[in-house]
Amino acid sequence: MGCPAGIGPEIILRYYMARRWPAGLQPIVIGDIGVLKRCATELNLQDSCISWQPGSEPIQGTTPVLSVSDLNAQTIQWGQPNNATAHAMVHYIETAVRLTQDGFLHGITTCPISKDALNNAGYNFPGHTEMLADLTSSSNYAMMMAGKSLRVTLVTIHCPLAKVPELLTPNAVFNLITITSDALRNDFGIARPRIAVAGLNPHAGENNLFGTEEGSAIVPAIEKARKENIEVSGPYPPDTVFFKATKGDFDAVVCMYHDQGLIPFKLLHFHDGVNVTLGLPIVRTSVDHGTGYDIAGKGVASPESLSEAVQLAADISTNRATVQTTGNS
Amino acid sequence: MGCPAGIGPEIILRYYMARRWPAGLQPIVIGDIGVLKRCATELNLQDSCISWQPGSEPIQGTTPVLSVSDLNAQTIQWGQPNNATAHAMVHYIETAVRLTQDGFLHGITTCPISKDALNNAGYNFPGHTEMLADLTSSSNYAMMMAGKSLRVTLVTIHCPLAKVPELLTPNAVFNLITITSDALRNDFGIARPRIAVAGLNPHAGENNLFGTEEGSAIVPAIEKARKENIEVSGPYPPDTVFFKATKGDFDAVVCMYHDQGLIPFKLLHFHDGVNVTLGLPIVRTSVDHGTGYDIAGKGVASPESLSEAVQLAADISTNRATVQTTGNS
Repeated sequence: MGCPAGIGPEIILRYYMARRWPAGLQPIVIGDIGVLKRCATELNLQDSCISWQPGSEPIQGTTPVLSVSDLNAQTIQWGQPNNATAHAMVHYIETAVRLTQDGFLHGITTCPISKDALNNAGYNFPGHTEMLADLTSSSNYAMMMAGKSLRVTLVTIHCPLAKVPELLTPNAVFNLITITSDALRNDFGIARPRIAVAGLNPHAGENNLFGTEEGSAIVPAIEKARKENIEVSGPYPPDTVFFKATKGDFDAVVCMYHDQGLIPFKLLHFHDGVNVTLGLPIVRTSVDHGTGYDIAGKGVASPESLSEAVQLAADISTNRATVQTTGNS
Repeated sequence: MGCPAGIGPEIILRYYMARRWPAGLQPIVIGDIGVLKRCATELNLQDSCISWQPGSEPIQGTTPVLSVSDLNAQTIQWGQPNNATAHAMVHYIETAVRLTQDGFLHGITTCPISKDALNNAGYNFPGHTEMLADLTSSSNYAMMMAGKSLRVTLVTIHCPLAKVPELLTPNAVFNLITITSDALRNDFGIARPRIAVAGLNPHAGENNLFGTEEGSAIVPAIEKARKENIEVSGPYPPDTVFFKATKGDFDAVVCMYHDQGLIPFKLLHFHDGVNVTLGLPIVRTSVDHGTGYDIAGKGVASPESLSEAVQLAADISTNRATVQTTGNS
């Protein structure tokens, strides 16, 4: 459910009202049933929430909720997280991970949390992803932004642009290429994924005229990955590689920095983008937006990204099971 | 006509065959009639080329050509520029500038040239734009990429990404904001243009967490421009500002580096983007692609960008005349 004071409760209610998922998929909410019910009343949304317990069969047409916090719903102020909501939010994540590891659930889709609230509650993680990596003892993971037109992964993420060049090492780029390749095969069911690597500089450096990182970091990583039989190419001029990817030339673009990947991704998938964590033992997707504290409780939040994220988690779970069954890993 | 050995001749022939321009617009070719005729024969394209002289009325339905080079057309090898093609190409540009300055033409649209050929012919300019600035004694000019969905201008262009942060000064950003504002008013006829300025860093620095250039260079430039009554705002997170611009929130986005602007621009306008030089006394647009040496003579080049570029030059010329007439500058 993410932060109880954000738009998580509202988009969950709207997602269950639309009920557009295919047969065979059964989404479960892990959160606070009282907060959901208050949100439904206040925003005049349908309330079909009923309690669910792990292992039991959800009743069709309802919103099954494993309620693991007991917040005083009436005291919640939309857009105002506090210590109680922060601890509750962390508990949802821990519960979801445990139930997935124990086989009660096939994967997790996370609604947005607040990093500040997380830290104020004593959990020193920069965000969801790092917390999930810790809970699952994962060290080699990465973020992918996935949409119907484009998938991107990022070598560097939240750092100043000036720091990006020094962070680009052959190992960092190679590592991301392999994580991306594994995910495309195992999670997305693409037998022979084609991966493009973007350059760092204009025109991918144009033969060292506009920068040298292509030669020092990117090309060696690509060559090493090709030796491991990964179908990867580049470095491509950043200003045209995304167009080529959307035309079907590539299954994903490995990007050197945050905005290189997110500018084209958000242009194409502003409303329906999904954030996927690659390299975890459990399936995890996330909505591609924040807590929306500025619009929480106003009845204007869209469940589109949540809907896409749950569907993708289901698809990844199915693909992983197929890979395990057929041994195609 | 651009480089005679590139795709310039082919796209010109195709542009005149399609003949989609509105009444009142009369495009003239400055180039080599022999090369055009050979290209038409070889690619089986319609040849309606006839000689035109400045000041004379073009014959409707023809392709009027001011032929200012006398290349031996049969010796041209597509994709292989030489000294003769380089000097001819330069002569087309010089002639176009002079005729525009003298009032015979209302503006120039340039087909692609090769920087290498330009330099080999003894003209030490990085490209077209710098040569045109020199020919018109202009020092305060800038490049805009313009399309129906998005317009971007660039503070830095062809430099390594690692050099971008140090090149961002309040003056450089302020200067581009004013050039952009003037062009939107005078060239694009937007009475009160709304300009967005992109940040440099992820999330526009997120309060100095991911970089400080927003505070040191971009914010001061925006504040100074606002004092001069320019409707400019930002710095915006780069990953969402282009989506907002395409939804109509802004008339142009001032970008900090090459790929920040060109990644979204080429994603939206790969085929129909136009390069406009702002700040010249004459109207100049350019196709948004290179000489296409790899596809020259193969009959696969598209005149779409040329068509858009000529139309935009005509629009800018009309808008500038309107501004001069009404004094709205």
